[in-house]
Amino acid sequence: MSKEFNNKLLTTAASMRENYLAHISIDCVVFGFHDECLKVLLARFEGEDDWVLPGGYVEKKEDLFDAAKRILEQRTGARNIYLNQFKTFGKIGRSEFFFKDIPDDVWYRERFITIGYYALVDFSTLDPVKDVFSDDCSWHDVKLKPNLVMDHNEIYDSALKQLRRDLNYKPVGLNLLPEKFTMPELQKLYEIILDRKLNRGNFYRKMMRYNILTKLDETKRGGAHKSPNLYVFNLDQYNKALEDGFQESW
Amino acid sequence: MSKEFNNKLLTTAASMRENYLAHISIDCVVFGFHDECLKVLLARFEGEDDWVLPGGYVEKKEDLFDAAKRILEQRTGARNIYLNQFKTFGKIGRSEFFFKDIPDDVWYRERFITIGYYALVDFSTLDPVKDVFSDDCSWHDVKLKPNLVMDHNEIYDSALKQLRRDLNYKPVGLNLLPEKFTMPELQKLYEIILDRKLNRGNFYRKMMRYNILTKLDETKRGGAHKSPNLYVFNLDQYNKALEDGFQESW
Repeated sequence: MSKEFNNKLLTTAASMRENYLAHISIDCVVFGFHDECLKVLLARFEGEDDWVLPGGYVEKKEDLFDAAKRILEQRTGARNIYLNQFKTFGKIGRSEFFFKDIPDDVWYRERFITIGYYALVDFSTLDPVKDVFSDDCSWHDVKLKPNLVMDHNEIYDSALKQLRRDLNYKPVGLNLLPEKFTMPELQKLYEIILDRKLNRGNFYRKMMRYNILTKLDETKRGGAHKSPNLYVFNLDQYNKALEDGFQESW
Repeated sequence: MSKEFNNKLLTTAASMRENYLAHISIDCVVFGFHDECLKVLLARFEGEDDWVLPGGYVEKKEDLFDAAKRILEQRTGARNIYLNQFKTFGKIGRSEFFFKDIPDDVWYRERFITIGYYALVDFSTLDPVKDVFSDDCSWHDVKLKPNLVMDHNEIYDSALKQLRRDLNYKPVGLNLLPEKFTMPELQKLYEIILDRKLNRGNFYRKMMRYNILTKLDETKRGGAHKSPNLYVFNLDQYNKALEDGFQESW
């Protein structure tokens, strides 16, 4: 650790203890999609080589979910992002060893159990914000994700797994696709998240069964092939499905 | 609160603070299945009318998951139960008000963020164990679940929702059904968890697609109808699916 970074840790520790709940932190895995590309938001501590997930702590009089929203807003400027709590990580030593250069009793070096949230946003609409400890906060293509310190690789993997699993019972695509989109555009979004090709017929049938799409009386122009149909999300159905989950057809 | 219960809280508080991580607790929703009946394990504080989920705290040098296993073992005597972390609850006031009769600075009255785990076991094989604070710990039919204090109704609802959702991507039934079982017996287990009737043909096709069953060259005898086929779980496939989840057929 650089001397400057260390000093910053030591001088802020007392006010952290005063304002935040001990032993509890939040880490956010913010996935960004745009133009057929999936990225993740990462921060780099001042003077360090390695990257971390953007995170923070819970104020003593703040709901856990409000803390997650606040942390995400501080890093992206965005409010009202749909946040999914996916897992809580609590292994001994998951973060403590990273702060080995500061004394045992300093806030940051204590044991933290961290609650993971993920979000999926359009990265072209958000400007990442550095915090006081970082010299960089930026979008990274998931195919070229750098190594993360502490247990943040594990947290990232877990978030990606959950995002992929959630595709089976929650809708996705609103605010990520143009308002009017084609079925191949929607399928591409799923393929990029899942990192594999999907069967066109199965995908179409599954999507129509979810009952969240409205087919328009328009087609998309300009392609070499037959103009594909355009769709919009039915917002009532979409939000209902986001809340209740898709009913699996047993 | 009874005076005895209060005294127990006050006399144990100092050793709690010494041994456990502040602000973090664990609550377990232990579902029990046997003979077409679904129950949940509940405890009742000494001298109180209302019930709580069995729970506990995390030792200062103990992995979070080990703490959950320890707490479950202390209440059921069972090791190696498959535990699912499903959600972490962190609203202001979720547990604090319940302990209003003790001073603000006593361990139990502080703010706790609680990590929820659920399990599904055969309740006929386990004898619930009271802890030092409870005068009862017992199985309750989910259809007749009593009111729970603090935010434990919300935690219970969330666990049941997750258990039902998990049926879509994890196998269930091992240790809950006889070693050799019929497809109707397996379907009944799903119907009782989901609390609704399922279509027989769809259920059969879905189960066979999951590839976790081996059909035996035996049939079950003694029924009025045609003897139904018997199945066993393919343990390799079952455990693999438990680890990786079912691949949804996009």
